[in-house]
Amino acid sequence: MNMNMKFLQDLLSRVSSRARDHDVGGRGRTSKSGSSPLFQLSAACHALMNSGGEASRILVAQRALEHYAQLDAQDRVAFFTLLAEEYAADSEAVHLAYAAYRDEESNANLERLFTACEPARQNLLRRLNLCPGGTFELVKMRADLLGLLKEHPELAPLDADFAHLFSSWFNRGFLVLESIDWNTPAAVLEKVIQYEAVHEIHDWEDLRRRLGPQDRRCYAFFHPATGDEPLIFVEVALCRGIPDNIQSILASTEELDANDADTAVFYSISNCQRGLKGVSFGNFLIKQVVQELKRELPNLREFVTLSPVPGFAAWLSSARSAGQVKLSPHAESALEEGAWQENEESRKTLAGELMPLAAHYFLEAKHRSGQPLDPVARFHLGNGASLHRMNWPGDTSTKGLKQAHGLMVNYRYQIDQIEQNHEAYSRESSIICSSEIRRMAAKQKPRSQQKADA
Amino acid sequence: MNMNMKFLQDLLSRVSSRARDHDVGGRGRTSKSGSSPLFQLSAACHALMNSGGEASRILVAQRALEHYAQLDAQDRVAFFTLLAEEYAADSEAVHLAYAAYRDEESNANLERLFTACEPARQNLLRRLNLCPGGTFELVKMRADLLGLLKEHPELAPLDADFAHLFSSWFNRGFLVLESIDWNTPAAVLEKVIQYEAVHEIHDWEDLRRRLGPQDRRCYAFFHPATGDEPLIFVEVALCRGIPDNIQSILASTEELDANDADTAVFYSISNCQRGLKGVSFGNFLIKQVVQELKRELPNLREFVTLSPVPGFAAWLSSARSAGQVKLSPHAESALEEGAWQENEESRKTLAGELMPLAAHYFLEAKHRSGQPLDPVARFHLGNGASLHRMNWPGDTSTKGLKQAHGLMVNYRYQIDQIEQNHEAYSRESSIICSSEIRRMAAKQKPRSQQKADA
Amino acid sequence: MNMNMKFLQDLLSRVSSRARDHDVGGRGRTSKSGSSPLFQLSAACHALMNSGGEASRILVAQRALEHYAQLDAQDRVAFFTLLAEEYAADSEAVHLAYAAYRDEESNANLERLFTACEPARQNLLRRLNLCPGGTFELVKMRADLLGLLKEHPELAPLDADFAHLFSSWFNRGFLVLESIDWNTPAAVLEKVIQYEAVHEIHDWEDLRRRLGPQDRRCYAFFHPATGDEPLIFVEVALCRGIPDNIQSILASTEELDANDADTAVFYSISNCQRGLKGVSFGNFLIKQVVQELKRELPNLREFVTLSPVPGFAAWLSSARSAGQVKLSPHAESALEEGAWQENEESRKTLAGELMPLAAHYFLEAKHRSGQPLDPVARFHLGNGASLHRMNWPGDTSTKGLKQAHGLMVNYRYQIDQIEQNHEAYSRESSIICSSEIRRMAAKQKPRSQQKADA
Amino acid sequence: MNMNMKFLQDLLSRVSSRARDHDVGGRGRTSKSGSSPLFQLSAACHALMNSGGEASRILVAQRALEHYAQLDAQDRVAFFTLLAEEYAADSEAVHLAYAAYRDEESNANLERLFTACEPARQNLLRRLNLCPGGTFELVKMRADLLGLLKEHPELAPLDADFAHLFSSWFNRGFLVLESIDWNTPAAVLEKVIQYEAVHEIHDWEDLRRRLGPQDRRCYAFFHPATGDEPLIFVEVALCRGIPDNIQSILASTEELDANDADTAVFYSISNCQRGLKGVSFGNFLIKQVVQELKRELPNLREFVTLSPVPGFAAWLSSARSAGQVKLSPHAESALEEGAWQENEESRKTLAGELMPLAAHYFLEAKHRSGQPLDPVARFHLGNGASLHRMNWPGDTSTKGLKQAHGLMVNYRYQIDQIEQNHEAYSRESSIICSSEIRRMAAKQKPRSQQKADA
Repeated sequence: MNMNMKFLQDLLSRVSSRARDHDVGGRGRTSKSGSSPLFQLSAACHALMNSGGEASRILVAQRALEHYAQLDAQDRVAFFTLLAEEYAADSEAVHLAYAAYRDEESNANLERLFTACEPARQNLLRRLNLCPGGTFELVKMRADLLGLLKEHPELAPLDADFAHLFSSWFNRGFLVLESIDWNTPAAVLEKVIQYEAVHEIHDWEDLRRRLGPQDRRCYAFFHPATGDEPLIFVEVALCRGIPDNIQSILASTEELDANDADTAVFYSISNCQRGLKGVSFGNFLIKQVVQELKRELPNLREFVTLSPVPGFAAWLSSARSAGQVKLSPHAESALEEGAWQENEESRKTLAGELMPLAAHYFLEAKHRSGQPLDPVARFHLGNGASLHRMNWPGDTSTKGLKQAHGLMVNYRYQIDQIEQNHEAYSRESSIICSSEIRRMAAKQKPRSQQKADA
Repeated sequence: MNMNMKFLQDLLSRVSSRARDHDVGGRGRTSKSGSSPLFQLSAACHALMNSGGEASRILVAQRALEHYAQLDAQDRVAFFTLLAEEYAADSEAVHLAYAAYRDEESNANLERLFTACEPARQNLLRRLNLCPGGTFELVKMRADLLGLLKEHPELAPLDADFAHLFSSWFNRGFLVLESIDWNTPAAVLEKVIQYEAVHEIHDWEDLRRRLGPQDRRCYAFFHPATGDEPLIFVEVALCRGIPDNIQSILASTEELDANDADTAVFYSISNCQRGLKGVSFGNFLIKQVVQELKRELPNLREFVTLSPVPGFAAWLSSARSAGQVKLSPHAESALEEGAWQENEESRKTLAGELMPLAAHYFLEAKHRSGQPLDPVARFHLGNGASLHRMNWPGDTSTKGLKQAHGLMVNYRYQIDQIEQNHEAYSRESSIICSSEIRRMAAKQKPRSQQKADA
Repeated sequence: MNMNMKFLQDLLSRVSSRARDHDVGGRGRTSKSGSSPLFQLSAACHALMNSGGEASRILVAQRALEHYAQLDAQDRVAFFTLLAEEYAADSEAVHLAYAAYRDEESNANLERLFTACEPARQNLLRRLNLCPGGTFELVKMRADLLGLLKEHPELAPLDADFAHLFSSWFNRGFLVLESIDWNTPAAVLEKVIQYEAVHEIHDWEDLRRRLGPQDRRCYAFFHPATGDEPLIFVEVALCRGIPDNIQSILASTEELDANDADTAVFYSISNCQRGLKGVSFGNFLIKQVVQELKRELPNLREFVTLSPVPGFAAWLSSARSAGQVKLSPHAESALEEGAWQENEESRKTLAGELMPLAAHYFLEAKHRSGQPLDPVARFHLGNGASLHRMNWPGDTSTKGLKQAHGLMVNYRYQIDQIEQNHEAYSRESSIICSSEIRRMAAKQKPRSQQKADA
Repeated sequence: MNMNMKFLQDLLSRVSSRARDHDVGGRGRTSKSGSSPLFQLSAACHALMNSGGEASRILVAQRALEHYAQLDAQDRVAFFTLLAEEYAADSEAVHLAYAAYRDEESNANLERLFTACEPARQNLLRRLNLCPGGTFELVKMRADLLGLLKEHPELAPLDADFAHLFSSWFNRGFLVLESIDWNTPAAVLEKVIQYEAVHEIHDWEDLRRRLGPQDRRCYAFFHPATGDEPLIFVEVALCRGIPDNIQSILASTEELDANDADTAVFYSISNCQRGLKGVSFGNFLIKQVVQELKRELPNLREFVTLSPVPGFAAWLSSARSAGQVKLSPHAESALEEGAWQENEESRKTLAGELMPLAAHYFLEAKHRSGQPLDPVARFHLGNGASLHRMNWPGDTSTKGLKQAHGLMVNYRYQIDQIEQNHEAYSRESSIICSSEIRRMAAKQKPRSQQKADA
């Protein structure tokens, strides 16, 4: 790898001045050898690219990752900038390789051009990955990077390298599905508590309620290189009939005989690793869990979600502001005062006005991609599920009220229709939904058309 | 991916004519739907690249690999050619991306060029890898490809793509070291019998002699995605002192208490998957096994190999033909008649003449890379081992006599010198060897110099 | 434990004279300390009963079992005699305890009498069992003892102690059912080869044919204290329909999709440990395997055996000798010459005469216990199976011809009738069999009644 | 089994009147069939003894144990009384067997007498143990029984039967040692929280502090038949030097590198199953854990406990009441006011007076068995440990202050002296202790002798 030698000198001056600053600040992050972690990290990266046999690289990679772990926020930016700028491809080599390809468009010449274009940092990341535990450290490193992209858009190509490698490393063929229950090691369970992103798990007793009973299941994907770190998990409730309410699932004290259940409800799906953004697991997970459950419990006939509608309240608010949608005064005040939960009449009014609006939201409100505005809808419809039923009020927690005025929906996974649903959705952005919801949306349309006509 | 549409038409005509041929030949490989596996495979590949959600791709990938498994040799060439030619990068996109990069050498533009240069087949291979068991099928597919490269050098870029992906997928961080012994599942053991490449394992009893006793060990690397398929394994004998003879190890009937051993001997290393050519496991394996053994058996002080010298006899023969080396008439006839094994005097004569020649072979005979001519020497010296001792006769099997006139050597792994040995070897091609061997080689030198002087 | 002190003196003199003999014989079995294993074993047993904490007993027990392993046949008799005579209960204590019980028949007094009656050797055996691996050594010790009982009927009470302990230790609640297949460790598989008692397994390839295909199963009971030593195993073939022939199962090369099978056939059941004689596993095993298979393969509707009839030929021979049964001259000569296998006519004749006799044998020939004469029939009928079908010729192996003139039968396990079958069999010795077999037996009856009437 | 028929009638009348009472009380514990659990249980026991094959017994046993689980306290007494009285041995059979034995004291006759004396309930318990999970149910049943023995001493023989069976079933050879850590299934960990008997575990975070750090260990014995129910466990801290204080262990936030530790401290040993009273695990456990730790961490040189002194405060109180021991007024008031913890002078005074008394307590205060009065001392000294050091104040928790005025001691396990210590202790009740403690005790002696002389 033809590494620009100037960079090391630049780097040395930069990191040594930084090291000096640190001494002044007395932050003491300098290592025993007197040099800062940033300096040591960059030296280790240099060594990793330029010397050594494969076995010695394991040690260097290990040290590099230890140094990285000591960086503060500022140093991380410096390190990522170093990767982006100095571990890019060698531009001269690119020009030469292109010239050859231009002269003869052979496969071999293209391969050389491809190699010349590959940023050196991809190789660096591969070598950092040599050491035991390296994969997870790199996943965390990318999580750090993602947090910086907004302020440092110039680091985007570095992120693309991570994404490129991770999509290879976390290929679906390498994932292992594991059931998580009360017999799972505590070291894994505490991560489930930590990573749950939809309906918070408050403590170990709460966790036990979700994992212990025979009418509850939890499945996660793991990757051999990241050991007992779950990548994504889904929590499942086994029920009779399709539930319309999350509190009844979370607070349930009665236990159904698993063999008596006819419906499996996916009520929480959590991605665990921010650093794996863009590597898609969720659709594989749900479909594999459906297979697993069908095999174990042949009585199951329905596979549905009980899902939040995270974008509804925000959409409604902005649609109202824009005058595209209008609520009755009664409904307005009920929503504002939040008092509808105890007031039968308010509930009726709201149900009558919110349901058509919600149906409209699902079918008509669009993301810039042309897909539905609601991110959870995009996920499940993109997986080939259909929008089955709206449940109101389905989630009366603070979070549920805030993001969706208490609305929840069921998406339905019908094994034999997933493919065609998916195709219809991805080709024509067709939203497959129940006739009930379509009817509901129709109620709303005229009004919004009236609006448009006006 | 901007796929050239012409290819499909070409392909269709090609495969349909082929299908017709098949019908004539009545080979019956056409599937129920009347079309040949090659046609179906190419259609599946097309589908994999152009449609569907990720979950549906699993099924398509599965079908594609099933079709591939049915191809005959001729069809494989056709399929690989298809991949090489039609799943290359889009040349127009390359030119455009390059133009942008030339105008502005930004990271982002380079990333686009890199993406444009990436052959579409890399993505195709990644998608074929989606299905369960796909990884192993792809490894076997590359083994097929490697067998065709000599006759079809135009397929080399395709092989480079495989190599590129496999070095990511079979990253050392994903490998799992497992001990193999008589408690290992029979399904794995039969593969050890099958893959042993150095000293053949004749049957289950032979296998048991190598795995069962407490002074024998075997370790293998596995990869989660290829399940119980070993990638590489090493067989180890625990001894007192460094052994000079392979037959005494293979035929041993006495069992040493493992705690009494002071020496671990690596006497057989076998790569199991031809399709993983170029993905290096061996050096990691030996070093990890050394760690493992040291931890379990603190009394071990020496870690050596008992290795074949596969290139010695051929080198000697050609050196003699070229007049660079001369044996005494007695030695010549002893070698020719092969009678030296039972003849004490012949043995003495041969020992006196062969040892200096062998030392010379190791130190002076060079590969075009500047490294030693002997491939096993390149492997161990490249790993940081030193050439420790020559043993003659060390292997009196037919194979051992044929390839090295019975010569074996010990390479020695000294943990604290591996790094510097490796550096010296890789930087300066220095061959680290015992003074005894160096002295032996010196005996030869004058003679060959005489030769040169003459 | 109030140990009679005289015994030690006796023992000492006996074993020392024996030791002397050994020296004369120069058999060299005396240990380093100059004393024989028998002496050391008896000393260790004494120590085990009279001293030490529980932890020290582990060591003593270990040594004792090592000494036992060195005994020759003669010494074993001496040792067992020692156990029988000197580790009996203390007769004086028995008399005293009885006197107390006679005076007051309290629970407490009975408990004391019970304790006084318990032979000291039960406690000794329990203490020998303290050391790791002790259980299996004791099982083998009893196997030795069983081999001596015929010649040494006086050792029967000692055998009763073993039986008493083993029925506690090998309680069904402690057994673990494991599936054995081609993924089972070789160390276990070689025991399956060794222990197979019904249809010999010739080599590893033969074994693979019985374990590898998806339409073959094997299950074994293990006990935690005897580790990977199988106690009993059953081999199962999954078929369509009930097979009538063992050779077609053993030599099968076609593999049925397990999900297409409707019948599970238990074609071989082998007890592995002679030393566990009288501890019944077989009935638990079959019933648990039936449950297991039903769960995994819901399409299975029939559970039958394909069983040998080990007592038929012997019974027929003696019945003929006794004049109770008469074959036609043609049948007689066909049987004698053994030529019927290739001769269609002989086969017909034999079928016509042997089947009624066989049915008669099952229904009328009685063991002294009042149960059927055939031991395999006793086992399966006692388990609640019914006698379903006779198959002739069902086993044309040398063994099959010799013991049953080629006859095999199917016993049928119908889960919902097992209980009542068992009750009927055990209360009234009712043999539950198919009407076909009953009809067959009826054909025979008149003849034998004629005989009786004559 | 010759069952007294009268008992059934008695039982019927008893349980039917009880059933009536229940109806009156409206407690509704009668089952669907209208009969009480007690009645059904006794019927099931009768069935278990008198009918059925072994397989059917599994079902009956299961039902019996389910009925037992429904019994209330009063019913349990009735059931245990039934077992004690009606499932005793048949007295007539005992007399007959004895008569035969008296006439001829043969082994066979003794065996028959032994069999006649064995209470039928032993067989009943063995058959109850047939069903899956039966063993643990029986352990709990005995725990119930133990709680009743004080009020119902007549049930002691029944308890002896349980003890007899359990010592066979829970033979050391059947126990499995497992390490318990933060990777252990939560279902086991919650039992550790529940069963911890020495230093309470407050919640999961507290548990993690005891299991998670690398300088903490926990080991438990399990039995295959009771699955994941720990029988006994010990918690270990790895330290540098011998600790003198439990709070510093329990509250530790610093983590020692396990390889740097030179001392393993057993600071809590908890028996988990009351029903296994009298079945000794503790000494095996400690010794096996010592082996395990030595193997894993060769740097460990000392194995000690940090143990409570549960009997010290009570002994001191009664010795003071009896005038055998006298504290200074200052010490008296310091102890009474409990204010010594913050008062340096009081601490000094108390140390000076309490330590000799404590040493005296260990060496002179005796249990009726002649062993030390302190139960923890009996346990460890009986195991072959020595009394190494007194630590004051070692436990300032409420419990520690209450039972021992804050005193803790270290018992020391020296592998090569365990045997002789044990022998000396068990033969001569010699208490092996450090010279320091002996010297301390000597200080006290004169005073107490003075007392005696006075």
